[in-house]
Amino acid sequence: MTHVTIISTGEELVTGRAVDTNASFLASRLTAHGYEVRRLTCVGDDPESLERELVRSADDSELIVVTGGLGPTADDRTRVAIARATGAELVLDEDSLEHVRRVIESYGHKITESHARRFDGLTALSKAEGQALFPAGAEIYPNHCGTARGFACLIGKAKAVMMPGVPNEMISMFNDSVLPSLLKDSTETILVRRANLFGVPESQVDDRIEDLMANGRNPSVGLKAEGGAVGICLYARASDMEEAERLIAEDLRVIRDRFGDDVFGYDDTTLAAAVSGLLEQHGVRVAIAESCTGGLIGSMLTEVPGISRFFLLDVVAYSNEAKIRELRVPAEEIESFGAASPQVAESMARGVCEMSGAELGISATGIAGPNGGTPEKPVGMVCVGLSLDGRTTSHVLQFRGDRQRIRDRAAKSALNLARLALLKRS
Amino acid sequence: MTHVTIISTGEELVTGRAVDTNASFLASRLTAHGYEVRRLTCVGDDPESLERELVRSADDSELIVVTGGLGPTADDRTRVAIARATGAELVLDEDSLEHVRRVIESYGHKITESHARRFDGLTALSKAEGQALFPAGAEIYPNHCGTARGFACLIGKAKAVMMPGVPNEMISMFNDSVLPSLLKDSTETILVRRANLFGVPESQVDDRIEDLMANGRNPSVGLKAEGGAVGICLYARASDMEEAERLIAEDLRVIRDRFGDDVFGYDDTTLAAAVSGLLEQHGVRVAIAESCTGGLIGSMLTEVPGISRFFLLDVVAYSNEAKIRELRVPAEEIESFGAASPQVAESMARGVCEMSGAELGISATGIAGPNGGTPEKPVGMVCVGLSLDGRTTSHVLQFRGDRQRIRDRAAKSALNLARLALLKRS
Repeated sequence: MTHVTIISTGEELVTGRAVDTNASFLASRLTAHGYEVRRLTCVGDDPESLERELVRSADDSELIVVTGGLGPTADDRTRVAIARATGAELVLDEDSLEHVRRVIESYGHKITESHARRFDGLTALSKAEGQALFPAGAEIYPNHCGTARGFACLIGKAKAVMMPGVPNEMISMFNDSVLPSLLKDSTETILVRRANLFGVPESQVDDRIEDLMANGRNPSVGLKAEGGAVGICLYARASDMEEAERLIAEDLRVIRDRFGDDVFGYDDTTLAAAVSGLLEQHGVRVAIAESCTGGLIGSMLTEVPGISRFFLLDVVAYSNEAKIRELRVPAEEIESFGAASPQVAESMARGVCEMSGAELGISATGIAGPNGGTPEKPVGMVCVGLSLDGRTTSHVLQFRGDRQRIRDRAAKSALNLARLALLKRS
Repeated sequence: MTHVTIISTGEELVTGRAVDTNASFLASRLTAHGYEVRRLTCVGDDPESLERELVRSADDSELIVVTGGLGPTADDRTRVAIARATGAELVLDEDSLEHVRRVIESYGHKITESHARRFDGLTALSKAEGQALFPAGAEIYPNHCGTARGFACLIGKAKAVMMPGVPNEMISMFNDSVLPSLLKDSTETILVRRANLFGVPESQVDDRIEDLMANGRNPSVGLKAEGGAVGICLYARASDMEEAERLIAEDLRVIRDRFGDDVFGYDDTTLAAAVSGLLEQHGVRVAIAESCTGGLIGSMLTEVPGISRFFLLDVVAYSNEAKIRELRVPAEEIESFGAASPQVAESMARGVCEMSGAELGISATGIAGPNGGTPEKPVGMVCVGLSLDGRTTSHVLQFRGDRQRIRDRAAKSALNLARLALLKRS
């Protein structure tokens, strides 16, 4: 297996002003493709630190992946460090310079030659020229999202790949150019799939698939809990794709048998996309009435492209007055049970269906905190209402954490309850 | 200055299944207290990798902070690595063993002596005993949130601090015990503040405060661009807090002079919180009408605790029918100009004010993509409408990127335009 070191550069990382998500992305993708990532390292912007890491990593890794420090500003010094570590000369690439010009002009800006910067051992260059310098003989990777191209060269026997630090530029460069170039020589096929669950805590998922998670098993299985959902990640290694697919399909069947409808989708499917798929399948149109979630349910659902065909209306009725006037919640109901009650949740779901003509109404009302909790209705108590084909039900849920977390989990739980209701619809 | 290396351990980090947020937390806190963090490194669970990092870091750092690998499971091997790196014997601490017992029993579990694990050079021990082993002479840190205590010892001349990897255990141990113990000897005060801007690209901010960003200046100044906003971060070092505050206040004045109302707030203030503050100051109530942003404006604004006093209603009218029926947008207007037009944006903002009685109406309608663009109205074109005290205006904006980015930037721009309008209100 190829041993990999991933190096991220930037003062914002070593001072803790930013979290390094680039390294995890790369580690996850490279691991999925059979590389063994041994070390992730963040260093600041001084070229000496990066040079030391490069030289050290060339000793114990066959592949070094570096992000950051290729841009136009004074603290972008990866080129200098690479030149020092390799002893290679930095050469101006005319085609890349032309690319930098084109991108800057497409933003409606002009290249200002006045912004000169000095490269160690080189004459002063403009910002644009700085981004078109590469070690002699380097493999250059296109950048479809920004100015600075990436490149690869050798440090001793190790292959070193340099990419910009801006996540979307880095991710598309890695997917489109770097990974295909790395995989040219590989003989093993790796297939990665993920089953996504909602409503089952990670520790329970862990317990129920202990057998699948045994060390050395193929596919190897890992868990990824994020925002209330749990992903079961499967990595199959095989000599060809057909065999890899067979191995994965077998495990997915086992997972589906054990977790049933708690599996809401596969790979990058979100809860909202699962709901959207069911709306399409059933020809059902949805309307939403939100209180404590303040528009989150709507904004999650409208993340799905094309949802406009099924999404009629979302009314965020934060005040009691708006609940009464817009959603026709009876004032006595709010008085008797409080705005955060299953009764009001049901009236909200019913009301928004009547307003819009939707077959499915989803509502949420509760106490997002940090204030407003009582012993009977503590912070984190949220009532979800569902109205489907004229039948209305409600669920009282309790969430923990801060305001943001409570709102997020409440919105996702509402979507999940809507999904389960649509699955049961005949 | 004390040079610091932060080491995080765990297979989940080097395989990219988890993002290392512990290191950023520690880097940020240590930087704020005058330490110079030079390197963050993640390694897997094998004790050899960690041992190598410890030995190397003891060479070029005076302080090494390690998180993870102190727990009860088989992949927790930080103790072993430390014992090897220091040559110190691991000794059972009876008080810590008692603590582990108490915590486990408070969870309603029993200590199972059957779960034995083997430490290198030691006899098999129970999980509980494993967590009560420390290098002879170590300083032990209490853990108020879990079983595994932390500790500090010397590796050569460097002080090495070991903490659990579970974020809440680590954070409370760092704040309550580790930092106070480190600061006992420090003489310097550090103050960190941030000015937040919206509507000015990072490169422009960079150009306009080049003088403040000069190397070696005090306060030192860095930029942090995130989600369309740009933060100017100031780090002042001084012998006392009064002097640090004076230095920061001077720079904040300069920034305010240069960027005026584009500065929307300081430190952790969000755009939504800035808007909320102005609503309170002016006694203005807000209502929102959204199309392409699908509830995002409302969900951002309702992230602010206590906003319910000023937030009346948000109507997500995704369909033309809902725009006409709920928001009373004239059907002819949609026919003539299209749903994504300044005319419709104005009618939406006006309509939602009439519906709710709010003094301020904010609306957004546009093309979020990926489909639906035309040469006249490309993907990313968003019209924002504002109605304040009966006067309605609109703005046509163009955003780049994917659907999520376009929606996010459109929602924030709408909030920013509302903020600027409130600032101008007499």
